[in-house]
Amino acid sequence: MVSDYFLDNNDAITPNNIFNFVTIIKSYKMNNKIAHLFNIQYPIIQGGMIWCSGWELASAVSNAGGLGLIGSGSMYPDTLRDQIKKCKMATNKPFGVNVPLLYPDIHKHIEVIISEGVKIVFTSAGNPNTWTKTLKDNDIKVVHVVSNSKFAKKAEDAGVDAIVAEGFEAGGHNGREETTTLCLIPLIKKIASIPIIAAGGIGTGRAMLAMEALGADGVQIGSRFVASEEASANINFKNCVINSKEGDTKLMLKQLTPVRLLKNNFFDAVQDAENKGVSIPELTLLLGKGRAKKGMFLGDLDEGELEIGQVAALIKEIKSAKEIVDEIILEYKQAKEELLSSNR
Amino acid sequence: MVSDYFLDNNDAITPNNIFNFVTIIKSYKMNNKIAHLFNIQYPIIQGGMIWCSGWELASAVSNAGGLGLIGSGSMYPDTLRDQIKKCKMATNKPFGVNVPLLYPDIHKHIEVIISEGVKIVFTSAGNPNTWTKTLKDNDIKVVHVVSNSKFAKKAEDAGVDAIVAEGFEAGGHNGREETTTLCLIPLIKKIASIPIIAAGGIGTGRAMLAMEALGADGVQIGSRFVASEEASANINFKNCVINSKEGDTKLMLKQLTPVRLLKNNFFDAVQDAENKGVSIPELTLLLGKGRAKKGMFLGDLDEGELEIGQVAALIKEIKSAKEIVDEIILEYKQAKEELLSSNR
Repeated sequence: MVSDYFLDNNDAITPNNIFNFVTIIKSYKMNNKIAHLFNIQYPIIQGGMIWCSGWELASAVSNAGGLGLIGSGSMYPDTLRDQIKKCKMATNKPFGVNVPLLYPDIHKHIEVIISEGVKIVFTSAGNPNTWTKTLKDNDIKVVHVVSNSKFAKKAEDAGVDAIVAEGFEAGGHNGREETTTLCLIPLIKKIASIPIIAAGGIGTGRAMLAMEALGADGVQIGSRFVASEEASANINFKNCVINSKEGDTKLMLKQLTPVRLLKNNFFDAVQDAENKGVSIPELTLLLGKGRAKKGMFLGDLDEGELEIGQVAALIKEIKSAKEIVDEIILEYKQAKEELLSSNR
Repeated sequence: MVSDYFLDNNDAITPNNIFNFVTIIKSYKMNNKIAHLFNIQYPIIQGGMIWCSGWELASAVSNAGGLGLIGSGSMYPDTLRDQIKKCKMATNKPFGVNVPLLYPDIHKHIEVIISEGVKIVFTSAGNPNTWTKTLKDNDIKVVHVVSNSKFAKKAEDAGVDAIVAEGFEAGGHNGREETTTLCLIPLIKKIASIPIIAAGGIGTGRAMLAMEALGADGVQIGSRFVASEEASANINFKNCVINSKEGDTKLMLKQLTPVRLLKNNFFDAVQDAENKGVSIPELTLLLGKGRAKKGMFLGDLDEGELEIGQVAALIKEIKSAKEIVDEIILEYKQAKEELLSSNR
């Protein structure tokens, strides 16, 4: 076993051991399940986020060797079609679309996706049984986002190709059980036989390596790509993300749908209401309509809803998607080398 | 660089490369900061937990190659002295005491620790400035438990030797910012120059490896050791832990001191009260006195306070401390070997 060399026999470097080493090294092949599934270079998925991930970001991430996703949840069907067409012009690499299954015009989105020949769809927020077969019948790879192992099992049974397991620290909509990424990955790994993409709290190469150590096959990264040049997020929101500090996000609106928000005036109003124990209709009224667009797309930092993950506190610069991917991969490689040279 | 061999040059196994490899391998030395700091075999600390970690558990973990901690928070000073004496009889390996600094008779605890010649103290829940100097002056290694980087900095400035960085998923008392272990470690690593021990959500070798990948120097494990033969927890509580499922714990009593609890009758009563928005005095009255002892030590699973981490959902068997340590190390080694052989 390789670890024997590192962990027990520090001084046992013999010709025979070297021979064994070389045999092991020669057997190493690029064999990452997620990279293979999507035919991409790195198992890095850019999360499909409302108001932040249009064709510019998706194509830039795909061109950089990851998998870019268009976030369709904030788009009308015609907008989605336009975005897909532009993405196809901007990259010849694989890209995908994220579809929240609770979207009111979901069948129109599915029709656009199929007719435009998109080959990868990430579904979230809904029942994976409803559309997986239709998508698979159209030669589309399907991945479903879950926050617990019960829904992971349901997604696998529905026939999806992989699962995104998203923990409590993730931005935006989130699970009710509040299971963190560190606890969620091994729980889902216990019951799932398909590849697992870890999400929530991942914005660096070290976190990517940590997820691989836990047993995930790839990572989905959202917040880090919000603060990218190509994200369609308003520059005010991007600046807000890079200036945010530890403890500046919190999971709110748990009685409606839990969502991780950055602190601002709107956040404070929700917190006050929740501390007073207001009713669900009152909370719904407070939330109103269009808050997410107002905050993330139009840049109203006071009254808008600002969805971002805990990892925002680690993000200090707006960079291009390619710089972000390259930086993650470089840190990943360096951290792996460091881990290899450590000896416990 | 080592990673070049694994990541880019699959087929480039030349005599020169082999020579470089051997040089690198020969330079590997046992150089873990935490193992070195405490003079232990593995950088695994057993969390000092009220009602669960007396001398039997602490000495068993230390004898197994980790660092056992007596949890003094649930002990009178005389009990603590007796526990330390018994621990010294049961092991000749290093062990320590965890001291919550808000303990009312804290000066008596400190006196017992110094007079009994304990050489390692983990402090938590309080100001690290108050006792660190006294302890250090008595040749005691001091580690402080924190849940954010502000307190990590404060602890380092107070002169502690290492920091335990404990995330949202941890059992028992917890930080207000709800930062998860995955996000907390890199945040603290940015500001701390002393060694970091990761805590919260860690019960397996893979999680230990993931924390090393993130940059932690060691791990503190609590929940996994509650379900050990040597833990002083009531057998009812131990059985409750191994039968608990995903989503069965939640961070409660946030208006008092946030604490992660296992769901039971008492939990439901707290949840009802919190949903109604009751006042802090009403919550304090509901909590009452002695709930933790009632639940964890006396085994009243209905009305007792059951403190455990999210990772409980992964724990399925009560084992000896030695079996637990051995299992973690075996999984750690296997996962490290697997990671080494992967190629992204």
